[in-house]
Amino acid sequence: MEFEKQLEVYREKINAELERTMDEYTPKGLIVSDAMRYSLLAGGKRVRPVLALAVCDALDGDMDIALHFGCALEMIHTYSLIHDDLPCMDDDTLRRGRATCHVKFGEAYALLAGDALLTMAFEYITKNVRDSAKAFLYIKKLSYCAGISGMVGGQTDDIKAESERISLDALRSVHRRKTGALIDAAGCAGAIAAGRDENIAAEYTKSLGIAFQIKDDILDVEGDAATLGKTPMKDEKNDKSTFVTLLGIDEAKKELESETKKAIEAAEAFGEKGEFLKNLAEALLKRND
Amino acid sequence: MEFEKQLEVYREKINAELERTMDEYTPKGLIVSDAMRYSLLAGGKRVRPVLALAVCDALDGDMDIALHFGCALEMIHTYSLIHDDLPCMDDDTLRRGRATCHVKFGEAYALLAGDALLTMAFEYITKNVRDSAKAFLYIKKLSYCAGISGMVGGQTDDIKAESERISLDALRSVHRRKTGALIDAAGCAGAIAAGRDENIAAEYTKSLGIAFQIKDDILDVEGDAATLGKTPMKDEKNDKSTFVTLLGIDEAKKELESETKKAIEAAEAFGEKGEFLKNLAEALLKRND
Repeated sequence: MEFEKQLEVYREKINAELERTMDEYTPKGLIVSDAMRYSLLAGGKRVRPVLALAVCDALDGDMDIALHFGCALEMIHTYSLIHDDLPCMDDDTLRRGRATCHVKFGEAYALLAGDALLTMAFEYITKNVRDSAKAFLYIKKLSYCAGISGMVGGQTDDIKAESERISLDALRSVHRRKTGALIDAAGCAGAIAAGRDENIAAEYTKSLGIAFQIKDDILDVEGDAATLGKTPMKDEKNDKSTFVTLLGIDEAKKELESETKKAIEAAEAFGEKGEFLKNLAEALLKRND
Repeated sequence: MEFEKQLEVYREKINAELERTMDEYTPKGLIVSDAMRYSLLAGGKRVRPVLALAVCDALDGDMDIALHFGCALEMIHTYSLIHDDLPCMDDDTLRRGRATCHVKFGEAYALLAGDALLTMAFEYITKNVRDSAKAFLYIKKLSYCAGISGMVGGQTDDIKAESERISLDALRSVHRRKTGALIDAAGCAGAIAAGRDENIAAEYTKSLGIAFQIKDDILDVEGDAATLGKTPMKDEKNDKSTFVTLLGIDEAKKELESETKKAIEAAEAFGEKGEFLKNLAEALLKRND
């Protein structure tokens, strides 16, 4: 199947499953349920679950399990966005083209919606994945990647990067965790769903994760709010350390191309089946949002 | 062993394990690691892990597994306190006898410390419990109890109870989830660790959970900050719906005694082995903090 079409097939599967899950799990009439739905079902690129499906597909694995693993990842990604947007963090008002969760529902409900989505990720896996050995392996990986040694650790160091210049190495370390850890987890999701070594896609996801973040930093400078769906020029305004502020825009673009190339080369390991993964890396390089 | 002494043995085990875990899991030099340690290792009654150990003990189960299940529960309980104390929630400045996490470390780090503790609970279980079937069962229960259908759902409804009078039935429903769900999870932890029906202690924990909350509401009115370790008279000041504001203090005390009695009767099911559970219900009735 053509790349664009396949991507759409994956996304439709993911969105349908997320809709179904929210209908099943969130009690009616609770404001926090509305806040969870509002943020989780706001669209978005669904990069992490797409990646989980694509890696699993390339390995001829169990696509149902990959879908569940991937959707759990999207819940965790969404909780992190909700909390990141709060006034005590980035204080953002625009996300995925509309008001952020706390602007719409108030801070208390946004906080709880994030807490509930994080918790739901684990509940959802245990309720939907019958292969408990695979589920156990994945929960171990996912909780590691999402926690203090992964995403939350990266967010913590990122607070420092908000107000002071840090070195390029330190910035890479922040994003290996803040963005990279969940992208790694997505690769592992696909691999575990296929019953393969969980690190089989690690080289690919490592480069993809860094490329993804560099592109984010470039879009912050060159993108516009309407396409981005979030407030641009925030980093610049805040004098934050980013790949663009540290390297300059031209050098950042070179880095982006180099990391994308590395990802594409790593996808060679999957043979013909790796075609989608190569195209995905290209598409993320060229994205406008 | 005498009750007080046994309680102390349990608590020492729990505190030692939590110390060890924080040394192992939290990267040095991260402010959020300090914030996690500060709140998790602040003492506290450790009611939930004690309960997990006691139920497992009464069933001659695997005490190592119960310890791990119980400590995970304490991580989740602590995260909920940190987030509950934030300015957008209860805006509390005193907890377990000292400054709340956000007063000490700032809101952003307190938010992240809570997120990290919640995530760590799952990581910790998967890394320490080798019996993956039991771990899987427990993660399923724990995530359900801590999430939108349990604790977070209760917290959501509790926000409503802050500002308007709700019925006694509605209040019971709030606390069945807000406090009760994690206490139920503690009973399940002990039961699953012993390889028994997870609901074997459900009648006991249901009454204990309600009694625990009624006592909390009474202490809010009758306790003093030094003994409580948190700010008293908050509910009264806020005109919040509590068992005391809805029933009056005398009726609330009667309810407390009645629920404690029910818990003690339910502990009969454990025979001689249930002695500690009976004493625990008595002790929680008489506590001053």
